[in-house]
Formats: sequence, structure tokens, C-alpha cells
Amino acid sequence: MKRIAVLTSGGDAPGMNAAIRAIVRKGIYDGLEVYGINYGYAGMVAGDIHRLTVDDVGDTISRGGTILYSARYPEFKDLEGQKKGIEQLKKFGIEGLIVIGGDGSYRGGAALTKLGFPTIGIPGTIDNDIVGTEYTLGFDTAINTVLDSVDKIRDTATSHVRTFIIEVMGRNAGDIALWAGIGSGAESIVIPEIDFRMEEVVKEIRAGRERGKKHTIIMLAEGVMQGTEFAEKLKEYDNFHTRVTVLGHVQRGGSPSARDRVLGSLFGYNAVQLLEEGKGGLCVGIVGSELAYSDISETLNTKRDVPYLSLYQINKEISF
Amino acid sequence: MKRIAVLTSGGDAPGMNAAIRAIVRKGIYDGLEVYGINYGYAGMVAGDIHRLTVDDVGDTISRGGTILYSARYPEFKDLEGQKKGIEQLKKFGIEGLIVIGGDGSYRGGAALTKLGFPTIGIPGTIDNDIVGTEYTLGFDTAINTVLDSVDKIRDTATSHVRTFIIEVMGRNAGDIALWAGIGSGAESIVIPEIDFRMEEVVKEIRAGRERGKKHTIIMLAEGVMQGTEFAEKLKEYDNFHTRVTVLGHVQRGGSPSARDRVLGSLFGYNAVQLLEEGKGGLCVGIVGSELAYSDISETLNTKRDVPYLSLYQINKEISF
Amino acid sequence: MKRIAVLTSGGDAPGMNAAIRAIVRKGIYDGLEVYGINYGYAGMVAGDIHRLTVDDVGDTISRGGTILYSARYPEFKDLEGQKKGIEQLKKFGIEGLIVIGGDGSYRGGAALTKLGFPTIGIPGTIDNDIVGTEYTLGFDTAINTVLDSVDKIRDTATSHVRTFIIEVMGRNAGDIALWAGIGSGAESIVIPEIDFRMEEVVKEIRAGRERGKKHTIIMLAEGVMQGTEFAEKLKEYDNFHTRVTVLGHVQRGGSPSARDRVLGSLFGYNAVQLLEEGKGGLCVGIVGSELAYSDISETLNTKRDVPYLSLYQINKEISF
Amino acid sequence: MKRIAVLTSGGDAPGMNAAIRAIVRKGIYDGLEVYGINYGYAGMVAGDIHRLTVDDVGDTISRGGTILYSARYPEFKDLEGQKKGIEQLKKFGIEGLIVIGGDGSYRGGAALTKLGFPTIGIPGTIDNDIVGTEYTLGFDTAINTVLDSVDKIRDTATSHVRTFIIEVMGRNAGDIALWAGIGSGAESIVIPEIDFRMEEVVKEIRAGRERGKKHTIIMLAEGVMQGTEFAEKLKEYDNFHTRVTVLGHVQRGGSPSARDRVLGSLFGYNAVQLLEEGKGGLCVGIVGSELAYSDISETLNTKRDVPYLSLYQINKEISF
Repeated sequence: MKRIAVLTSGGDAPGMNAAIRAIVRKGIYDGLEVYGINYGYAGMVAGDIHRLTVDDVGDTISRGGTILYSARYPEFKDLEGQKKGIEQLKKFGIEGLIVIGGDGSYRGGAALTKLGFPTIGIPGTIDNDIVGTEYTLGFDTAINTVLDSVDKIRDTATSHVRTFIIEVMGRNAGDIALWAGIGSGAESIVIPEIDFRMEEVVKEIRAGRERGKKHTIIMLAEGVMQGTEFAEKLKEYDNFHTRVTVLGHVQRGGSPSARDRVLGSLFGYNAVQLLEEGKGGLCVGIVGSELAYSDISETLNTKRDVPYLSLYQINKEISF
Repeated sequence: MKRIAVLTSGGDAPGMNAAIRAIVRKGIYDGLEVYGINYGYAGMVAGDIHRLTVDDVGDTISRGGTILYSARYPEFKDLEGQKKGIEQLKKFGIEGLIVIGGDGSYRGGAALTKLGFPTIGIPGTIDNDIVGTEYTLGFDTAINTVLDSVDKIRDTATSHVRTFIIEVMGRNAGDIALWAGIGSGAESIVIPEIDFRMEEVVKEIRAGRERGKKHTIIMLAEGVMQGTEFAEKLKEYDNFHTRVTVLGHVQRGGSPSARDRVLGSLFGYNAVQLLEEGKGGLCVGIVGSELAYSDISETLNTKRDVPYLSLYQINKEISF
Repeated sequence: MKRIAVLTSGGDAPGMNAAIRAIVRKGIYDGLEVYGINYGYAGMVAGDIHRLTVDDVGDTISRGGTILYSARYPEFKDLEGQKKGIEQLKKFGIEGLIVIGGDGSYRGGAALTKLGFPTIGIPGTIDNDIVGTEYTLGFDTAINTVLDSVDKIRDTATSHVRTFIIEVMGRNAGDIALWAGIGSGAESIVIPEIDFRMEEVVKEIRAGRERGKKHTIIMLAEGVMQGTEFAEKLKEYDNFHTRVTVLGHVQRGGSPSARDRVLGSLFGYNAVQLLEEGKGGLCVGIVGSELAYSDISETLNTKRDVPYLSLYQINKEISF
Repeated sequence: MKRIAVLTSGGDAPGMNAAIRAIVRKGIYDGLEVYGINYGYAGMVAGDIHRLTVDDVGDTISRGGTILYSARYPEFKDLEGQKKGIEQLKKFGIEGLIVIGGDGSYRGGAALTKLGFPTIGIPGTIDNDIVGTEYTLGFDTAINTVLDSVDKIRDTATSHVRTFIIEVMGRNAGDIALWAGIGSGAESIVIPEIDFRMEEVVKEIRAGRERGKKHTIIMLAEGVMQGTEFAEKLKEYDNFHTRVTVLGHVQRGGSPSARDRVLGSLFGYNAVQLLEEGKGGLCVGIVGSELAYSDISETLNTKRDVPYLSLYQINKEISF
């Protein structure tokens, strides 16, 4: 293998640049040429491909976002697009590909490998909802960003009796809400994986009030419902003086945390090694604190076993 | 004068603790006893008053919020409440009062002084909308908090063609939007002091797009309209792929900036001095980079002359 | 068991408060009374012990340092002191103890358990040098703090040809230097676990210079030698225009990261559970991403097998 | 005037990029071409000059350092170098220059103007030691950076009786030490402008100890002496368990604060306007909260009247 390429796809995540940097540098260290593809699979099909040098990734490890831009490109599920993409890569003499992103990126990578173009996946999404790894790139930064905001809200929460509903990202996965909920001492955590009864939330708030608590924090994953909707439902029980904060896109940005920088470096380094070993159709991950590889296709067909659900119960016992 | 008291009122603001700390320490340095009143005027009327020692303000200069809690208490505009409040203060032998807050706090302070109880006002609100000072306590921290969030959003804004509408605090004053707009290089700034035409905003976005800009940032003061409403109006012209972020209560919190800590220290120090000189009915402020005093009642009757409006025009010429 | 106590010992670390909070709340949730001991073993012997309520740990999860203060107290290795300590605890009816700290704390805990007083250890130190856990409380925050400083230094490093030597904590363990080195893209990492040859560092700097790099960052663990000494030795080879930055005590402080807050919560929660199950002489930890327990005495007699040394080689291949 | 150029010189400072951005955009808005000179006067003499577009300054307002690099170049005081520099500028058709930096930059600017090449100075240095402005670009960010570090040190300072000596930048000016000293509640501030007696510092530490204070913070400007030297002198009186932290180059970096971004934008905007009005030999500044201009040569011959010395006395009365 002489030439490899890398792209980022789907929602961007802090740490993607650390992975790109490691891919470029490890590749060059091993004598390869490394190419960057702009705007994910869309750019691949369009041929938006350029050589990356060591300088191109200089001082990028501390930057949020992705220097290769990212895009969603659902059209890539069509065989035609996939073939066109491979054609474009071959024009540049590229023989292996690394894709950084979530489920959609993985699906593309599996398809390309099936067509004979070896592709390695790196789990990059703040949602932490990828099978085959305990942590995805960007998750650690995102939960720190959420905590930073909640800490600020807490500062100002003492003056009145108030209930703050913090809506965080996570359509299918409650990981951000769970970790940030524990980390901020939220009285209630509401996530898609666990059915919740509004009566119980009401009970938790009232119990806090009786104990003299002035403010309550409810950490709500967007996948359950919107913060404003939650507030309205809560109002049917009592006036808890709710305030809704939707953290939104802030959660995707920011300089990556130490862990996401190290994780991105490890993922990138190992993805290059896999390509060098002639492997494709694999995705890298962290399992049991060790680097691990899984088959992308299997990964996509496996239901995620949320490993941190015990945190949910623990929080009930330490944040009442 | 042997005993003085301090309270915080209205929305809390970073730097209030720095002011309280300076009042307590300067007072004690000069041989006074200093009392803290919890929950603003409400606590004053209720007699929620306690002696403050040097230890009580230890390690508070870096903390957001207010250790004296804050509350809105519109009932204090009634003479009865005011008299009851003075009565409570006299029970503790308190002879002078410092109130930290916005307009409402000032109104209370003017009324108390008129009733013979010397009161000094310190401008504490993130909105920067108080006459008699160029900067209010908390404004500097708030604009830094806004920038921190917008920087994160920018990280993630490059992947798609998008228009981010950032709704920031400021019911009557556009100061936060203006400063944070300049500081984040926002393409459009929309504030209550200046009529805006949606056509112009549309023109600004389109001009950027033609020049190849991938994202547009619109900094919107809540006093003009809500972010979601703005997004809908914008949609009538074209689909600019808007995303609305409402920064909300995050803006009130956070460890105070260097400037708010110094400002709070200066304000607190000087407020004590004014009381010691037997003065009341004044508010402290920064004018022309110097400490200055004005009559509270005059302040309340003066329309604010926004000193920074030229920033609005400057931004048009450097953030097109 | 009706009453338990907790102390922090040795150098403080961010996340200790999260652990104390979890101990207090989990204990109270289960019907126990929880006591805090100030100043570690010194305070235990002196009887500086007080009941902790839920309010005492309110809003502490985001605070650096330890609300129970910490102290080194080498005298506690004497049997007499240990017996005196147990006596003090028994005065309060305390039947189990949790100690948060490093090796010294563990040694005390093992001794107390041997004397019949069940004690559980929680690994709390920024150095990450405790056997029985992959991560210690405070390590994650510390590496983020280091990166924050190095990012700032990088901003200013482009103007001249310069070599920045960053001396970080770690007397016996290179973990901070290793992780922060990877995370900041340091050209050289120098740690106690791996012999280094100055010739190689010189080669690395020169290679970078030839490739056009303007600045070099060397991440140096204090356990190898002081930064100034390193700079002098380097000077014997060439004038690399070195600047030494000793990060010092800054590394111990700061609001704990998300991970240290969650880790502290888990450790605290599980330590209480162990005491409730009648166990003593154990320390909690994270092994293979799972909570795990080990025998304290064994832990103290086991040489640490540094699990991350591969990072050292990886960095050579991605930060040349 | 059709073409103007900008350079940064001396030590870099956060906010320089905001000024460069405003110069480029305001210039282009007004129909000018704007050139950037790399590496200050050295690059000017060497002809390291290139056209700057709006894209070149995109997303730079939030970045520390300077995208034009900076350099010290004492040789520029020779007439020959100055003439050579003007020659280079003329090759590109450049008719006016803006220099961002400190005293040295101003001296160059005055010399160029005298030779008929209109030059405007912008005060850019974290030290705040330039005549003709109350605040220099970078000062506000630097004091916030110092406070961030001292807040972390405070977290960890409670366990033992300790005296932290924080050495901050400021060879001739105590502004950083003064503002950061107030902002961190330092018990002693030691600056070049005010003679200090070690006896007094000793008295201040002892007074705090007697009142039960566990830690003391001394904010020391490097211009007085080094932190380690100070610690040794202090030791002659008593063992105060001192710890020295030298903040060093960290102070120059970091994303600029809101104020430095706005200040840089204003300075840049107005410097362009001055050139357009045919003026040279002036420097911009903030005086009495208003933009102001002074003659560079006069500025260089005027002894700075430190406007904030009253802060020194105030701190004695609120941080005892």
C-alpha cells in the first residue's frame, strides 16, 4: 500500500483533528502518502481530494471541528455513488481509506470494503452510541462542555426556588445525559434507554424541596422529548418554576479534552496499521481499556449494550 | 457610623461577591461591623440579617452568583415595606446600607435615603444598562461567556451552509449583543436601540454566501424578539438553514473575569467610603475610566445614552 | 454498621470532593451517619472529627481541592498513633473508615484494618501511580490542565525558533507527561520509566528544525530531573533557545473534569457498599473499564505495571 | 492611498489577530489592498510581504498569537535598515503602514514616518506599559490567564500553612501584578513602581496567620526580582513554607478575551482611518474610555504615569 485517504462524515466531533493528524503523520512516518477528502462521502464522489503534508496538520490537535469538513450524504447508500467514489480514489492511486464518523460513515465503509476497497472505521461522534467501543471520539469533550455550562447555571440558581431542565444531545443514547447528570449532581436524569414516569420526577423534586433544596437540575436527553415539552408536562403537576436550557450546538465544539486527543491519536495510529496489514472492513475501538477491532458489518447489526446504566441507579442514591 | 449592611437584589451577576468581599473587608479594616442581608429587600423586610466576618468572604472573589442570594421583591416600592425594612435594620444598630443590583435596587435605595436611611447603590447586572456607569458588574464576564459558546459553535459551523442565530440577554440594552457580536465576528448584530430591517440582514447573509462564506452568525438581543421568531421571519425570504441557540441563564454565571473582580472591589471599597463620609442616595460607577458618583434619583430619571453605538457601524465595516 | 467516616490524605486532587459527596449521600441514603475527619490522619489522631450532612456536600462536586483538607502525616506509621486514631473514631461510635489518597493513605488503611478497624482505600492523586486502578482520581483533570497551559504556550511559540521544556508533576510515574505529551503533540517525552539519551532528544529537535518546524515542545516528568537542569544539559549540544516552564501546583487544582467527577462518585459509592458488606482492607479502582477491588496490602507490595507505555512509542511515530 | 501594510513586532499578545483582521477587512471595505508583513521589521527588510484577503483573516479573531508572526529586530534602529524597509514596501506599491507592538515597534514607526513613510502604531503588549493608552492589547487576556492559574493554586492551598509566591510578567510595569493581585485577593502585591520593604510583607503574612489564614498569596512582578530570590530573602525572616510559581510564557497565549477582541477591532479600524486621512506618526489608544490618538514620538519621550496605583493601597485595605 502506497497511498491512503481519510475523510470525516456525519456530525463533527472534537478529536477528529487529532485522529486525522495521527493518520497523516503515522502514514508519512511509514513511507505512505496520505490524502484528505473534504466533505465526507460527498467530497469523495465529487473528487474533492488533496494530498496532506505534515504541515497541514500542524497545530490542529487542539482544534475542535474537522479540518476536512464533514457532511451528511445519504445518497452514498446507492451502489452507483459507491462505485463512483472508488473510481475517484483510484484516480489518485489511493488504495485504502479511513472514515471517521458514526453509523452512516460505518455503513459507507462496509459497502466500500465489500466492493473490494479496504476501509477502516473510527468512531467519531459526541453521542457515544457506536457499538464496538466504550468511548467514541468527542464524547469526553462534550460532557465536559455540558458540565461547564451547568456549573454556570448553578451559580445563578440559588436565588429563587427553581427547576432547571437542561436538554442535551443524544437522540438514541443517553450517555451524555447520564455522565453529565452524575457530574453535575443532577437530581433527575431522563434518558431514552430507561422508561421514566413523570410522577417519579415530581417526587424527586418535592423530596429535594422538603429537604430545603433551593434548586433542582433535570438532565434530559433530547431523544426523550424536547425540554419545553418536558416543562409543560411537569407543569401539569405543580408550578416548579422551571427554566429550560437547550445546550444545542455548543456541545459539538470546543478544543478537545486530553482524553479525546489521546483517543484520536490512538485510533488514527491503529487505523493506519490495520490498512498496512492489508485489513479492511474493521472499526477500531476501546474495549476494557484496550484498543480493539471489530467487523464493521457486525457492529452495525449489533444492538448496543449500554455499559453504564448502573450509573443511573447510582445517581438516584447520591443525588436525591 | 458603626454598623453597615449590604444586600444584592434583582438578577445576580458575576462580581457581586467581589463587591461584598470588599465591603466587608474595607468596613472591618476601618473598624466597622458589617452585616449581610439575605435575599435582597425581601430579606431586609423579613429580618434575614447576619453579621459578616472576614472568614465569611474568604475564597469568594472567584465565585459566580452571590453569597447573599438575590431576589426580586416588587412589593418594596410600598412605603410600608420600606419603613418595615428600616425598622429591621435599626434593630441591629445598622446605620448605612449598600445595595448591589439594577434599576429596582436603585429605586429601593433612593426611597430608603429619602426616608433618612443613607443608602449607596452599586451597579450589578450583566445587562450593562445602568445610567451613571460605563460598565456594570457582571457585563465583562457575560460577554466572555457568550464568546466562549460562540467559539464552540464556530468550530462546528464549517461543515454545512448554515446560519446561526445566537439569542443573548438584554431586554432593553443591546450591549451584550454588541460587544459579543464584535468579539465573535458576527455578520449581523440586532439590538433594541437600532431599528433593523430584515431585508438588510438578508442582504448581509447573501453577500457573505456569494463571497464563499460557509456560515453566518447573527447576534440577537432578546429584547428585539425571540430567536425562534427571528428564524421564522428570516425563512420568509429564503432557506438559510438557520439554527437557533438561546444562551439563557448560562450568561449570568461563571467565575467573574479579572475586570469584574477588580471593578467589584473598587465599587465595594468606594461605597463604604461614601457611607463613612455620611453620604447617601448616591451610586458608584466608572466614567471615563475613573470612579465617579451620581445621585441615584437623577440616574433613574435619565435616559441612557448608549456610549458604544459606534461599535454597530464599525462591525458592519469589518464583519461583512 | 451505623457510622462511617472519611478522610483525605497526602497531596490533594480534583475529584476528592466528588468522592466525599458520594460517600456522604450514599451513606445517608442507606441510613448511615457519616463523619468527616479534617487534615487526614493527623486530624484523626487529634480528634478533628465532625458529622457531615447532605448540605455540607452541596455544590461541592465542581470544586477542586478537598473540603476535608488534607495533610501528610508520616507519624501515622507508628502503632501508637494508629491506636490513638482508632480510639478517637470509637469515641464517635464510628465503625468503618474510607481514606482517599495515595500510597501513604493506603498504608494507614492497611494498618487500621489489621488492627481490626475496617478501612477502604480510594486512589486519589493526580500522579496516576497507584496499583489496582487504571486511573486515579485527579489524573484526568491534571492532564487537561497541563494541555490548557501548553496550548497557550504554543500560541506564542511561533515567532522565534524556540524549544519549550515543560516540567510536569510525576516523581515516579510518567503518566502525566505521557498523556499530556501525546495530547499536546510534544516532540519529545521524557519520563522516569524509560531511559532516555540526550543524543536522541537532540536528534529529534534537529530533525524538526530541518523540516521547517519553528518550535519544539519537550514534556518532562519532574522525576527525571528539573527543567532547568535539563535545559543546561541540552545546551551542551547546541543552542536550542530553550525556555523552561514549571507548571507546579497549578496542576493539582481546578474544577474536576467530567471523568473525575464520575470516577469520584463511583469510587465513593462503592467504598460505602464495601463497608456495608463488612469488608475492610480493600481499595477500589477501575480495571478494564470496570469497577474492581484489590487487597490494599497486596497493592502496596506490587510493582506497578505501567499500562500505557505503548503511548511512548506511538508518540515517536506521530510527533516527529 | 491604495495599498497599506501591517506587521506585528516584539512579544506577541492576544488580540493582535483581532487588530489584523479589522485592518484587512476595513481596508478592503474601503477599497484598499492590504498586505501582511511576516516577522515584523525583520520581514519588512527581507521583503517577506504578501497580500491578505478576507479569507486569510477568517476565524482568526479567537486565536492567540499573531498570524503574521512577530520578531524582535533591534537592527531596525539603523537608518540603512529603515530605508531598505521602505524600499521593499514601495516595490509592492504600499503607501502606508500599521505596526502593532510595544516601544520598539513605536520607535520603528516614528523613524519611518520621519523618512516620509506614514506609519500608525497600535499598542500591543500584555504588559500594559505604553504611554498614550490606558489599556494595551493583550493585557486583559493576560490578567485573566493569571487569575485562572491562581484560582487553581488556591484550590490546593488549604491543606498546609503555605505562602505562594506567584511571579508574573512585567519588567518595568506592575500592571499585571496589580490587577491580578486585586483579582485574586493576594495578601501582598510587589511591583517595580513602588518600593517595598520585606519587613512589611513579613508583617502582612504574620497578621494573616494570626487571624487564622492558612495560605498567603504574594503577587510579584518579575521586574522587581525573581520569585526564587524573593523566597530566599523571605526565608531570612522566618520559614513561611513558600512555594514559587513562575507563570512564564503561558501569560502571552490564550484565546483573547472579549475586551481584547473589541479593543483590537477598534484599534485596527481606526488605524486604517488615520492612514486614509493621510496621517502618520500617530498611535491609537483608549483614554478616558474613548479612542484617542497621540504623536508616537511624544509618546516615546513621555514617562508613563501609572493610573492605577490607587489599586495598590486599596488592596492593602481589602486583602489584609
